Amino acid sequence: MSDAYVHGRHARESERLKDQAGALVDLLHGDTSYTAGSVVLEAGCGVGAQTVTLAQRSPKAQFLSVDISADSLAQARRATRAAGVTNVQFGQMDVFALPFAPESFDHVFVCFVLEHLSRPAEALASLERLLKPGGTITVIEGDHASALFYPDSAEAHKAIECLVELQRRAGGNALIGRQLYPLMVETGLEAVRVCPRMVYVDSSRPDLVDGVTRKTFTAMIEGVREAAIGAGLIDPESFDTGIRGLLRATAADGVFCYTFFKAVGTKRRAKESR
Amino acid sequence: MSDAYVHGRHARESERLKDQAGALVDLLHGDTSYTAGSVVLEAGCGVGAQTVTLAQRSPKAQFLSVDISADSLAQARRATRAAGVTNVQFGQMDVFALPFAPESFDHVFVCFVLEHLSRPAEALASLERLLKPGGTITVIEGDHASALFYPDSAEAHKAIECLVELQRRAGGNALIGRQLYPLMVETGLEAVRVCPRMVYVDSSRPDLVDGVTRKTFTAMIEGVREAAIGAGLIDPESFDTGIRGLLRATAADGVFCYTFFKAVGTKRRAKESR
Repeated sequence: MSDAYVHGRHARESERLKDQAGALVDLLHGDTSYTAGSVVLEAGCGVGAQTVTLAQRSPKAQFLSVDISADSLAQARRATRAAGVTNVQFGQMDVFALPFAPESFDHVFVCFVLEHLSRPAEALASLERLLKPGGTITVIEGDHASALFYPDSAEAHKAIECLVELQRRAGGNALIGRQLYPLMVETGLEAVRVCPRMVYVDSSRPDLVDGVTRKTFTAMIEGVREAAIGAGLIDPESFDTGIRGLLRATAADGVFCYTFFKAVGTKRRAKESR
Repeated sequence: MSDAYVHGRHARESERLKDQAGALVDLLHGDTSYTAGSVVLEAGCGVGAQTVTLAQRSPKAQFLSVDISADSLAQARRATRAAGVTNVQFGQMDVFALPFAPESFDHVFVCFVLEHLSRPAEALASLERLLKPGGTITVIEGDHASALFYPDSAEAHKAIECLVELQRRAGGNALIGRQLYPLMVETGLEAVRVCPRMVYVDSSRPDLVDGVTRKTFTAMIEGVREAAIGAGLIDPESFDTGIRGLLRATAADGVFCYTFFKAVGTKRRAKESR
């Protein structure tokens, strides 16, 4: 996992991720639940933005949520404790070097992680090995080129492109959502099903205007301002115009859309799978 | 309605619209049905790509489907006759000069029409006047900038941009989908609800690969090849590379997404509405 861009490291980023989790929980996780007794690996749990939801929706499953960052894990622990969740254990581990025997888990869950990895296919393959035959991997990723807004703004697209480019330079891929199907199929998973989840925001949904357009997406782009300017990708005025372009979509006649991709695949039951 | 770009005029275009209707019917129209006895105006029915579906889903409603093109109406008539549909009447009329008294219809349905109009707000307002208080207007439009594909292709985006630009020059707006909410609200409609409908295509859904990616979207872009080259928007090689870029998304590891926007609004019940 790249050290150059780890979500959830700063207080403001952590606040952003919590807002995001609140507004988008049903859209992303409404159809994820694990049966009683399942042992589920959450790979790359970060500050636990998804962990509480996951655990609450499958109260009789056991979760092991791992992340490479001790700071993030400390926050994740606090979040689960505050929510009274008791079916989660945490571990500080690298997703590329997990110390588990093959076929240790019933299911694997990975959310907003592959976008930061330079070798997402390799990560998926190593997670697949940890899965029992017949178990599932669920992967959720965004795709920043799916951002669509009214009024449109060329400067806003340039500001978004700064984040895409910085993530690319850090070895990641902010456009990975659309690629989940081939990634999962190439890993050897079966019955791969991708279901896009578009969050659509207009002023008839003020909670989403605030929680998604302003505090999630625009805040995320704004978060790379100094890095983008420092890297010479854009000048301060253009960047700020871009942010204003995004915020324009929060007005009464504004519209904002963003698409997440959720993929579920099943590990082959045959011994010779890989 | 602009004469420069009327859908359904040519045989090939008409074939394309039928493929589109087949693959996308449930996605777009699954939740549209009108109660027995309702009188519904379908404004801009074209070759009847939606008419048969609409009429079959509301067999006890009465439809009046109008279009400015006699050729399109002839095809629409044949399509309804072939389907055994008997609850549709047709009329050759301009959507800007409909010869009906105010409050003549229980509901209005408009699909893939506003994108071709230079004054979509005015068209909506004139349709709203024909509606009885408490009646609904349903509007469905695409948004060509929502096309997302894997692998990505800069040339494909340029080819798409040719269609967007030609439609703009003809007075239309191929990016109108995202704008439906403000358009409906500004018309004075109440309880406006927009619901995006993304069609997601990967090789696990071969009917959509063929029906949507190849025969609907790529064919539509391909359809403006001569016009785009003639207008000096692009050179033949770049355009053809763009088309190959779109077709690349039909391969086993390819992905294609496109978003339609469906909006429903209700006419105010108060007399002073407008």
